[in-house]
This record gives sequence, C-alpha cells and structure tokens, in this order.
Amino acid sequence: MAALYSSALLRSCGAGGVKAFAFSRGSSRALASAKFAPRLHFQSRRRSFCVKATSSEEDAAKAAAVVADTGAPTIFDKIIAKEIPSTIVYEDEKVLAFRDISPEAPVHVLVIPKFRDGLTQLGKAEEKHSEILGRLLYAAKVVAEKEGILDGFRVVINSGPSACQSVYHLHLHVLGGRQMKWPPG
Amino acid sequence: MAALYSSALLRSCGAGGVKAFAFSRGSSRALASAKFAPRLHFQSRRRSFCVKATSSEEDAAKAAAVVADTGAPTIFDKIIAKEIPSTIVYEDEKVLAFRDISPEAPVHVLVIPKFRDGLTQLGKAEEKHSEILGRLLYAAKVVAEKEGILDGFRVVINSGPSACQSVYHLHLHVLGGRQMKWPPG
Repeated sequence: MAALYSSALLRSCGAGGVKAFAFSRGSSRALASAKFAPRLHFQSRRRSFCVKATSSEEDAAKAAAVVADTGAPTIFDKIIAKEIPSTIVYEDEKVLAFRDISPEAPVHVLVIPKFRDGLTQLGKAEEKHSEILGRLLYAAKVVAEKEGILDGFRVVINSGPSACQSVYHLHLHVLGGRQMKWPPG
Repeated sequence: MAALYSSALLRSCGAGGVKAFAFSRGSSRALASAKFAPRLHFQSRRRSFCVKATSSEEDAAKAAAVVADTGAPTIFDKIIAKEIPSTIVYEDEKVLAFRDISPEAPVHVLVIPKFRDGLTQLGKAEEKHSEILGRLLYAAKVVAEKEGILDGFRVVINSGPSACQSVYHLHLHVLGGRQMKWPPG
C-alpha cells in the first residue's frame, strides 16, 4: 500500500535517485489514507508507463490536502534532516534547495524553508512570514544562477489542492532549461 | 504599428477593460521595433480570433526582451501612475496588484513593486531586494484572500524570454478559481 503513495509525494518532493525513491515509500506511509488508494494506484501505473495524466496529479493533490492542516510531518522533514538523500543545490541556515525527483524541465529545483513555522502553504502566510518569503524568492534566483538558467526560468508556488499542491510544506518550484509555455498550467 | 504591440504587452499587464486596451496602444509605441512587427501582427490576429498559439507568446517575450535592460519605462509605470486605468485589487505604499487584462483563470491578478529598483526580472534580484520580494509574496496571499481563492491558487513568476516574460518590471501572477494543471507550462 505504502508504495502506492510514493509517486504522489515524490512528484514534488525532489529527493534524488532510486535510493531516495525506495526510502520514501516507507516515509509516505504516515500520510496514507485507504480512501485514496485506488486513485493513487492509478497514478503509480501512470508513472510506470511514463504517460501524462493530469487528473492523477489533481487526485494526488486532493489526497495530500486531507492532512494539510494536521501539523503532520511531511517527506520534506526527512529531506531537511538528511534522513532521505536528495541532490542539494543550495543551502543556508534557513533555506534548502534540492532537485525535484520528477522534473518537468531540464532544471527543476524545489526551494523550501527549513523551519515550516505554520507555512504548510502560501495561503497560510502571515505578515510575520514576509522575511522568510523574501529569502525563499531570493534563493530561487540564486538557484537559477547556480544552475545556469539565469537568462530564463519560472518560479511556481502551488497553494491548495486546486493548484496541485502535493506536499504541505511551502515550496517554490524553480524550472528552466527549456522554453516554458503559456498558460502556466 | 503600435496597435500590434498592445496584445504583446497586455497579455500580462492587467489593465482593465476596453478603454485601457485602447490607451495602451499608444503607450506601447515606445517599445516598438520594426524587426518584430510581423511576429506581433500574428499575435494580434491570434487575439482577434481567440485562438491559443503558444509560439506567439514566446515571440512576444523575445520581442520584449530586446529592451529588457535598457532601463526603458514599461506599461506598468503608466499603470502605477494611474495614467492607464486598471482594476486595482490591492495597494499599499510599496505594492500594487491589479487584474490581468488577458486572464488565464477566473482570477488572474498581477502583483508588482511600485518602485522597480532594478528588478526588471527576478533574475536581476540582489540580496537587498529580499524585503520587497517578501512583501510581494505576502501580498499575493492577501490578493488570494480578497479574491476568495485562498483554498487554491498558483503564483507564477516568469524571468526572461524562455519563461514567457513580456514586461520587464518584476511581476507575480496570482491565478485561481479553476483547477490548475501540471506541469505549469
């Protein structure tokens, strides 16, 4: 059962490589809900056959939203704690940036605050969070520079299920290395 | 000739209504370059017939990039100065948020700094900009709240031509009111 959840989480969790994928199967168990298993099973099949199915991304986001405000840890906590390996691109005392394991562009990096501080999603931001929000956005630029895509990159933040948020720890997607399309999803 | 540029700029400038559209035709003249006229003419036709043609968005972004770092004013300067009408959603002393005139979702608002301060694009951000970057991102959340889409919204920042940036004054797109897709463009 837990294996069914790994693809849902790793779409935007950014852990690196096969080892990370295998490890995350267990870690995602805490977020499991039998109610969503059939849908996630379909998503698992989608990944296996490399077929794009947007509806399953939406379903994964809906599944993740169930535990959004429970304060439950996410897979990002394990990545921050280095309990799950990831390919780190940038790190300072407050910010961590690592590659998305399911990239949607040649460069696809996630930028997260190390301390969630209630920021399960951007929609939960309070004025006191402005400082970390600024640091995250500036870190996105630093990541683009390090990755050699400063001439063209897109930053995306999904807040809530209808935006396809699948991990409830605020994260910025930094995408580049190809021509991005419009509209943005 | 100038009319050909209006659609290129207004795709993400967010001025409100027909009056704003007409006014912007003149304002965009300063950014005109005969070299790009044929491409933009195609884009103008796209808008007329309501046909989606992503390549023209890319062309418009390439055209806009020509003057990106010249320090030239953009259409946003006129919106900030209220010389072009726009539908303002939120405003404080440093931030302005107004509706995109070419929305890609039921809610599509642009959030910009009133003082550009070198931030033609996110790729030009320096550490000193972290404060305004944080304010912009927090303002995006405030906009989502005001627009009633706090349960699900996406924030997008395009930096450079390959990300489809078409106005060289940093701006955040806030989109919601429909199911967003993945990948984000």
